[in-house]
Amino acid sequence: MNASPVSEFSGADTAVGAKLVYDIAEGSASMKSLLGGKGAGVAEMTRLGVPVPDGFIVTTQACVAVTAAGGQWPDQLWDQVLDSLRRLEQRTGRGLGSTTKPLLVAVRSGAVVSMPGMMDTILNLGLSGDTVDALGAEFGNPRFAWDSYRRFIAMYGEVVEGVPAYVYSDALDALKKRRGVTQDTELSTDDLRELVTTFLALSRDHIGRDIPTDPTDQLRRAIDAVFASWRNPRAQVYREINGIPDDLGTAVNVMQMVFGNRGNTSATGVCFTRNPSTGAKELYGEFLTNAQGEDVVAGIRTPRPLAEMESVLPQAFRQLTETMAAVEAHYRDMQDMEFTVEDGVLYLLQTRNGKRTAAAAVQIAADLVAEGVIDRAEALQRIEPAQLDQLLHPTIDAGAKGEPLTVGLNASPGAAVGGVVLDEATAQSRAHAGEAVVLVRWETTPDDIAGVVAAQGILTAHGGMTSHAAVVARGMGKPCVAGASSIAIDMDARTVTIGGQVFAEGDVISLDGATGEVFAGALPLVPPQITEGFRRVLGWADDVRRLGVRANADTGEDARRARDFGAEGIGLCRTEHMFMDPARLPAVRRMILAADDDTRAAALAEILPMQQGDFEEIFTAMSGLPVTVRLLDPPLHEFLPSLVNQALEVQRLELTGGGASEIAEASALLARIRSLSEQNPMLGLRGVRLCLVYPQIPEMQVRAIARAALAVSTAGSEPRPEIMIPLVAFEEELKRMRELVQRVMDEEFAAAGRSVEYSIGTMIELPRAALCADEIAAHADFFSFGTNDLTQTTLGISRDDAEGAFLAQYRRDGVITANPFATVDADGVGQLVEIGVRKGRSAKPSLKVGVCGEHGGDPASIEVWNRIGLDYVSCSPYRVPIARFAAARAALGA
Amino acid sequence: MNASPVSEFSGADTAVGAKLVYDIAEGSASMKSLLGGKGAGVAEMTRLGVPVPDGFIVTTQACVAVTAAGGQWPDQLWDQVLDSLRRLEQRTGRGLGSTTKPLLVAVRSGAVVSMPGMMDTILNLGLSGDTVDALGAEFGNPRFAWDSYRRFIAMYGEVVEGVPAYVYSDALDALKKRRGVTQDTELSTDDLRELVTTFLALSRDHIGRDIPTDPTDQLRRAIDAVFASWRNPRAQVYREINGIPDDLGTAVNVMQMVFGNRGNTSATGVCFTRNPSTGAKELYGEFLTNAQGEDVVAGIRTPRPLAEMESVLPQAFRQLTETMAAVEAHYRDMQDMEFTVEDGVLYLLQTRNGKRTAAAAVQIAADLVAEGVIDRAEALQRIEPAQLDQLLHPTIDAGAKGEPLTVGLNASPGAAVGGVVLDEATAQSRAHAGEAVVLVRWETTPDDIAGVVAAQGILTAHGGMTSHAAVVARGMGKPCVAGASSIAIDMDARTVTIGGQVFAEGDVISLDGATGEVFAGALPLVPPQITEGFRRVLGWADDVRRLGVRANADTGEDARRARDFGAEGIGLCRTEHMFMDPARLPAVRRMILAADDDTRAAALAEILPMQQGDFEEIFTAMSGLPVTVRLLDPPLHEFLPSLVNQALEVQRLELTGGGASEIAEASALLARIRSLSEQNPMLGLRGVRLCLVYPQIPEMQVRAIARAALAVSTAGSEPRPEIMIPLVAFEEELKRMRELVQRVMDEEFAAAGRSVEYSIGTMIELPRAALCADEIAAHADFFSFGTNDLTQTTLGISRDDAEGAFLAQYRRDGVITANPFATVDADGVGQLVEIGVRKGRSAKPSLKVGVCGEHGGDPASIEVWNRIGLDYVSCSPYRVPIARFAAARAALGA
Repeated sequence: MNASPVSEFSGADTAVGAKLVYDIAEGSASMKSLLGGKGAGVAEMTRLGVPVPDGFIVTTQACVAVTAAGGQWPDQLWDQVLDSLRRLEQRTGRGLGSTTKPLLVAVRSGAVVSMPGMMDTILNLGLSGDTVDALGAEFGNPRFAWDSYRRFIAMYGEVVEGVPAYVYSDALDALKKRRGVTQDTELSTDDLRELVTTFLALSRDHIGRDIPTDPTDQLRRAIDAVFASWRNPRAQVYREINGIPDDLGTAVNVMQMVFGNRGNTSATGVCFTRNPSTGAKELYGEFLTNAQGEDVVAGIRTPRPLAEMESVLPQAFRQLTETMAAVEAHYRDMQDMEFTVEDGVLYLLQTRNGKRTAAAAVQIAADLVAEGVIDRAEALQRIEPAQLDQLLHPTIDAGAKGEPLTVGLNASPGAAVGGVVLDEATAQSRAHAGEAVVLVRWETTPDDIAGVVAAQGILTAHGGMTSHAAVVARGMGKPCVAGASSIAIDMDARTVTIGGQVFAEGDVISLDGATGEVFAGALPLVPPQITEGFRRVLGWADDVRRLGVRANADTGEDARRARDFGAEGIGLCRTEHMFMDPARLPAVRRMILAADDDTRAAALAEILPMQQGDFEEIFTAMSGLPVTVRLLDPPLHEFLPSLVNQALEVQRLELTGGGASEIAEASALLARIRSLSEQNPMLGLRGVRLCLVYPQIPEMQVRAIARAALAVSTAGSEPRPEIMIPLVAFEEELKRMRELVQRVMDEEFAAAGRSVEYSIGTMIELPRAALCADEIAAHADFFSFGTNDLTQTTLGISRDDAEGAFLAQYRRDGVITANPFATVDADGVGQLVEIGVRKGRSAKPSLKVGVCGEHGGDPASIEVWNRIGLDYVSCSPYRVPIARFAAARAALGA
Repeated sequence: MNASPVSEFSGADTAVGAKLVYDIAEGSASMKSLLGGKGAGVAEMTRLGVPVPDGFIVTTQACVAVTAAGGQWPDQLWDQVLDSLRRLEQRTGRGLGSTTKPLLVAVRSGAVVSMPGMMDTILNLGLSGDTVDALGAEFGNPRFAWDSYRRFIAMYGEVVEGVPAYVYSDALDALKKRRGVTQDTELSTDDLRELVTTFLALSRDHIGRDIPTDPTDQLRRAIDAVFASWRNPRAQVYREINGIPDDLGTAVNVMQMVFGNRGNTSATGVCFTRNPSTGAKELYGEFLTNAQGEDVVAGIRTPRPLAEMESVLPQAFRQLTETMAAVEAHYRDMQDMEFTVEDGVLYLLQTRNGKRTAAAAVQIAADLVAEGVIDRAEALQRIEPAQLDQLLHPTIDAGAKGEPLTVGLNASPGAAVGGVVLDEATAQSRAHAGEAVVLVRWETTPDDIAGVVAAQGILTAHGGMTSHAAVVARGMGKPCVAGASSIAIDMDARTVTIGGQVFAEGDVISLDGATGEVFAGALPLVPPQITEGFRRVLGWADDVRRLGVRANADTGEDARRARDFGAEGIGLCRTEHMFMDPARLPAVRRMILAADDDTRAAALAEILPMQQGDFEEIFTAMSGLPVTVRLLDPPLHEFLPSLVNQALEVQRLELTGGGASEIAEASALLARIRSLSEQNPMLGLRGVRLCLVYPQIPEMQVRAIARAALAVSTAGSEPRPEIMIPLVAFEEELKRMRELVQRVMDEEFAAAGRSVEYSIGTMIELPRAALCADEIAAHADFFSFGTNDLTQTTLGISRDDAEGAFLAQYRRDGVITANPFATVDADGVGQLVEIGVRKGRSAKPSLKVGVCGEHGGDPASIEVWNRIGLDYVSCSPYRVPIARFAAARAALGA
C-alpha cells in the first residue's frame, strides 16, 4: 500500500460527480443494495428516531469501481470521504486525530449478502500515542482509553496488515498469566499501557514498519482493506459457488464510536426480538458490562442473559425493550440487533432480520399472522421450504455432540443410534431380538432392503446423496450418512474402522443424517414435532398452491402416513419393493428362472394374491384418492444373487469338493444370472421392455390391481387405480401395453360382473419419450415425469456411481452448483420436461401431468414444476409437507 | 365365398361410375400405381408395339375398395370386369367357356411393390371338362389341352382354394413313377387325362366340393383370391415391417393365354438385358421348349441358356433380342423380362427393371452414362448405397455353399475361413504361428481386442448387429456373425458345438458375414474389387455431394486406407485403442493403479512418446487434412481385468494355498478394480469427467499431439489436429478443458519456438449437450455428434445389452422397424441433433458440425444428416465409399 494516496488516483472509470459516500441520515432501508445491509439498517433506525451513533457510509458502488480498477480508487472517492468526515467532525464537535477532543470511529464492512472470509470490524480508529491521553482525560478514565487503544492496534493489525490474531492474543494471555489474573477487566491501566507497547512492537516485527499514526491515513487504509477483502480469493470462490455477482460490492460503514467499555455503567450486547430457536415471543439475548462488541462473540468472558440487564441497567433495559418492539414492528419481522450502552445511554449499532431454526420460522410466521402484522401469503414467504426438513425427523441433541469420528454426506436427515451390523441377515436377526441397529455397508443394493428396513439408520462408505442407500433411506424417513470414505469394513473380522477407531458388531454408534457426522456411543435425541403452528401454516399453503401433492408409497403403512401428511393421492407405487419381500422372493426367483411358460405361470399365480393384498391395503388407505401403480420396472437380475457372488460360490464348490449335483445347480443358476446380466442395467431389459418380453408379468400385476380394486370397493372403499407403464421410448410400446391392460381389466370385470374406474398412463423418463410426447400422448391418460431416470439419461450420469466418482468433486470445484439428482437441472432436464408437457398437451389437452421421484419433493425443483405448469408432484411421505409448502411458495412467485 | 355374386354387392364406398378396370391398351408406364408394376409394364410394351397378349387389368383401387369393405366388392366392379371380358372376347374372337373356340386367360397379381406370401399366377383359366376337348381339337393337339387343364387345376386349387401344392405334385410324381418316366413331357395324353381326373378328385377331397366348372365363376374367384392375398396376415405384417401403406392395393392382370407348351416350336423363358451379376452387356437368360412359365422356376426340368435359343427358334430369338434392346432403351435401364413363344411366335409377358448385384448396379450405371442413355445424377440414383457394402469385402463363393451349420446375425460383411479359437491368447499364438483363425466367443469385450485383431473373423453366441464384436469387426472390416444362439462353448473341453456338430480348437469353419451363415470346413472365397466403374461413379458422387466425408481411424494404417477410400480427413481418432496395445497396457495399468501423483506421472511419461508416435504416423498419413483426436473416453476399469475374474483369482489363491504376498497383491488389485467398478459404466466416470478428475491424462495426450504435430511439420507434412473433448454435458466442463488444452499447447509451442494451427471442439453425445448447445458452442470450434452414445442415452438403451435382450424381438414384433444403432432414430435422436445444430450455430455461426460413429456411414442416416445440414460425416474406412455415395444421393434428394 502506498503511503501517498495521490499516486493511486489514476482514473477508475466511475462517473465524475457520482455520489460515493452518504451520511447515515441520508440513507434508508430501501437503499440496501447501495449502502449494504448494515448501512441500510442503521440509516433506517436513524429515520425511526432510534438512537444510533452518527457517521457515514462508503457505498457498494465505490467498492465496485475500486474492484474493477484492480484496487485503484476513483478520483473523487477520497475527497468525498474527507468531506463526510469533516461534516461528522462538525456535527460531533470532535476531530479525528484531535489531541483535545478526539473523534474515534468504528469501520465496518457491510455487504448486501454476508460472506465468510471478509474483513469485518475495526473499532476505536483514531487512537494513537497522540490522542490516547486526551481520550482518557476527557472521560477521566485513562484505563478505558488504553483499553480502547490496545483493542484498536490488535484489530487494525489483524484486518488491515494481516498480522495473525494469535500474535496479540498470546501476548495478552502471557501478560494476564504474569499478573495472575483471568479477566481482561482485571488488568490495570499500566498493564494496558505495557500491552500497547508490546502490541506496537509485535506489529512492527510482523509488517516490517510501524502502524501508521496518522488517523486519516488509518481510515483510508481501513476502508481499502474492506475493498480488498471483497477481492480476496476465498471471497471470490465463495461468490462463484453461491452465484453471488461480483459486481454487488460491499459498503463500508464509518460510525462514531460509542463505548461499552467505559466502566460498569457501560455494556455491549446482542438481542433477538423473539426466540430464534423456538420462535416464542420472549426476551432473548446476552450482554456484558464494561466490554466492547467482540468480547461477546469471542467467549473470553461468559455473557449474561439479557433479562439480568433489567436490574443492572434498568433505564437502558427499558429503552432497549421498547426499541426492540418498535424496530420489529417497523420491519414486521423478528430482528437480530446489536447494542452498546455508554455510561447508561443506549445506542443501537445494527439490526437485521434474524436467522432462525425451521421451528422458529414457522412459529414466528404463524404468530405474526395472528398478531395481524403480516398476511398469510407473506407468512409463507418468510419460511424457507428446504429448512422444513428439520421438523420431520428426530435429531441429535446438538449440545451433546463431541468430536465426530468422521463426517460423510448428509444423505438423509434425522438421527440414528444403534449397534453396528454389517449385513442384512445380522440386521434382521438383531433387530428382531429387539436391538436397535445401524447398518454399515460399503454401499447398499436392493439385496439389502430388508436390512435397511430393520435398521435405525444406514452408514455407507461409497455412494452419494442420491445413492441407493440415500434414496431408500429418505423414502423411509431413515437417517443415512453416505460416502463416508474414511470407514473400512473387514468382513472376515466382522469389524468396521471409523476414523481410526475399530467397532465390532454390536458396538453402538450415533449418526446425524442432517450433518453427516458419525459419533461413538449413544447420543441423546430430540424427537420431531409437527406443531400446531406448522399445521396452520401448511393449511395456508394448501389454500395458495396450484400444484397437487401426492406421495410415493409402496405399502399400506406408507400410504396411511402419506395421507396423514396431507398427500392427495399416490403418484408412484413401486411394485418391485413388493417383489423384494423375503417371503415372496423364492416365488419371484422361480418365476425368473422358469424354463417354460407353465412353471412361470405357476410362480406368478403364487405371487398374484400377495400383490392383490398389497394393493387392497393401499387402495383402502387412499380411498377416494388416485393411486398410480407402476408396473414392474427393474431388471430381473436384481432379484437374483449377484454375478460375482454366484461365480465365487461355484468356484468355491468346485475347489472344496462340493457334490456334483450341488455344483450343477449352482452352475445353472450362474448361467441364468450371466444370461440376464447387463453391462448397463439402467439402460437394459426393464420397464415396458420387460413387460413386452414377459407379458405374463404385467398380466399378473394388472389382474392383481383389478381384483384388489373390486374387492375394496365391495368393502366400501373407493379405489381410484391409475396404471402406469414405465420406461416407454416408443409410441408402439405404450399402445401395446394399453391393449394388454384393457384386455386383462375387461376379463376381470367380466368375471366379476362389475367394474371400477381406472386410467392408463406412462412414465416419461427417457429423452426420446419427452421429444416424441405428442405421439405417446395418444395412448396415455396421464404422464408422470420420472426425473430420476430422465436426469440419468439426459446428463448421461449414473446415479448409483457418480457421487463418489466425480459429482462431489464437480460441486467442490464449481463445475456444477447443485446435485442434479437433488435439484432438477432446469436448463437440460427441465427443458425436456417442458417439451414433453407442451407436446403431450398439444396432442391431448386433457392429459394429466405430474412428476415423481426425488425432484418431486425438492423446493427448488418444485419452482420449476410450477413454472412449467405440471398438475402435481409426488414425493416421499416425509417430504409431503415440504412439497405442499414449496408449491405454495412457487405459486406466490417467492 | 358365395356362389351368387349379387349377394356380395353391398355397397363398398367406391364412387359410382369410377373406372376400376382398364384394357391393357388403355394403360401406360405412368399408371403404375393404378395398374401395378406388371400391368403398367405390359401396357407400356403394348404402346411400344412389342407383341403382348391382349387383356385387361383390375386396378389397385378396386383392391383398396374391397379391402376397405372387408372383402365385399363395390357395386360396379363385377359389371366392369364382365364388360372388359366381353370386349376381350370380341377382339380375340373367342369366348370364355366356349365349347368351340374357348378363350383361356392368365390371372396374375400385380402389386406396385412385390411382396412375399401373395398369390401370384393362375394360368389356363377357362378350361373345364366342357372346353378342354375344343382346345385340343382347335390346335389338333389334345395332349397340349390336357396338359394345360391339369396345370390349371393344380394352380387354381392351390391359390384359390388353399389346397397344399404337394397334393398335386405328389400325384404327378406317383404317376410318372408308375409310367417309369422322369419328365412331364414324357407323359401321354391319356396319362394327362387320368391326371386331371385324379387332380379333380383330390381337390374335392380337400375342399369338400368340386372346383367350379363355370369359367366366369372361376375368374371371379381368382380375382377375389388376389384381393384376399393382399389382406392375409403374412402380407399385412410384411407391409407393417417394411412401411408399405395398406392402401396401396394390388392390381389383377387378366390376359389371354399364349402357350409355350404347344410342342417343340413353343417355349417359355426369362431374360435380362444385361448380366445382373456383373452388369456386363451380354446375353443373359434361360428358356425351356414345350413348357409353361412355372416350369422354368420350379426347376423340375433344367432350363437351357438363352444363347441356345438362336439355333432352336432362330426367328423368335432374333425378335427377342431386338425387343430386349428396344425395351431397355425405352426404360433406360436393365430389364428383367418374361416371354413365351407359341408355335414360333414371340410374346412378351412382363418387363421390369432387373434386380442386380452391387457390382452390376455400378457397372450398368457407369455403362449407361458412357452410352449416353442417362446422366450422372441419374446414374447415382440407380445404385442402392447400402448394397455397395458388398463390394468392399471378400465374399464366400455362392456356388460353393452347402447347408449352413447355423445362421446368426449378419453383423459385419465379408467372409472368413479359419480354425476355431476360443480365447484371445490362443487366437494370438496360433495367428502368430501363421494359422488363420476364427475367434468364437459367447460375446466379446474390450479384453478380446487383440484376439479380434488376430482373427480372420468373429463368431459370437450373444450380441447383435451393434454388439461390441460387431462394431469392432465392422470398424476393422472383419467379418462377424453375431448372436448365433445355437452355438454352445465348452471351455473345459475346449470345444464349440455349432448346429449340433462339435468343433475342437483348430477345426476349420467358414463364416459369411453378409448372410450370417456358418459352414463347416474351408469354403472358397471371392476377393473384393473396386472396379474402374465404381471409381468413376464415386467421382461423380463427389461432384454432387454437399456433406464432407471423413473416416474414423485410430492408426496410421487405418488412416492410409481411409485416404485411399477417399476420406477427407479423420473425424474420430479414438485414443483408447492406443492404450489397449499389449505393449502399453502394463504402463497404462501402472498409471491407473498409481497410489500417488509421482507414480502416475512416471507411467504417463512412459506412454507419452508411444502416443506421440501414433499421432505422427496419423498426421503424416493425413497431411493437409483435419484429424480429430478424441481424448481418452472409456472408464479406466476397461483397462483392468474384470471384477468377476479377479474375485475368482483371489478366492482361487486363498483356497488353493497361494502365498501370502501373492494373495495380498491380487487382493489389492481386486480392491482397486472394485473401487473403479460401476453399475452403469456407460453413464460413469469417463470422457471429460475422467479428464477433469485425472487432468494428468489429457495433459499427457495434448502434449503428445502438440509434439507429434511439431515433429511432422518439421518433416514436411501439414498436420491439422482438432482436439475433441468427449461426453460434455455442462458448459463449464468444456470451458475448463479448453483452458487446459490451450495452456499445454502454449507450453509446447513456447518450448519448440514454433506453433501449428489446431482447433478445439467437443462430442455432442448426451441429450443435455444438444439441448444446451448454445452455451457449449461458446467454447467449441466444432461439434461432432456422437450418435452411438446419443442413441443410448436418448432411447435409454444399452448398445451392448439390448440386441439379444429385447431389441431383436422388438424388430420381429414390429414395435420398431429399424435397429436404432444402425440407422439413426430420426424422430428422437434426429430431433436432438437438429436442436443441437440450430442452437450451436445460433451461438456461433462459424461452428463446424459433423457426426461420427455407426450412423456416419449408414445411407439412411446420411439422408437425415444431409437434411439437418451437417458439414460432414465420419465413418469406418471401409464405409467411406458408401458414405460418399450416399451423401451424393442425399444431395440429389434421391
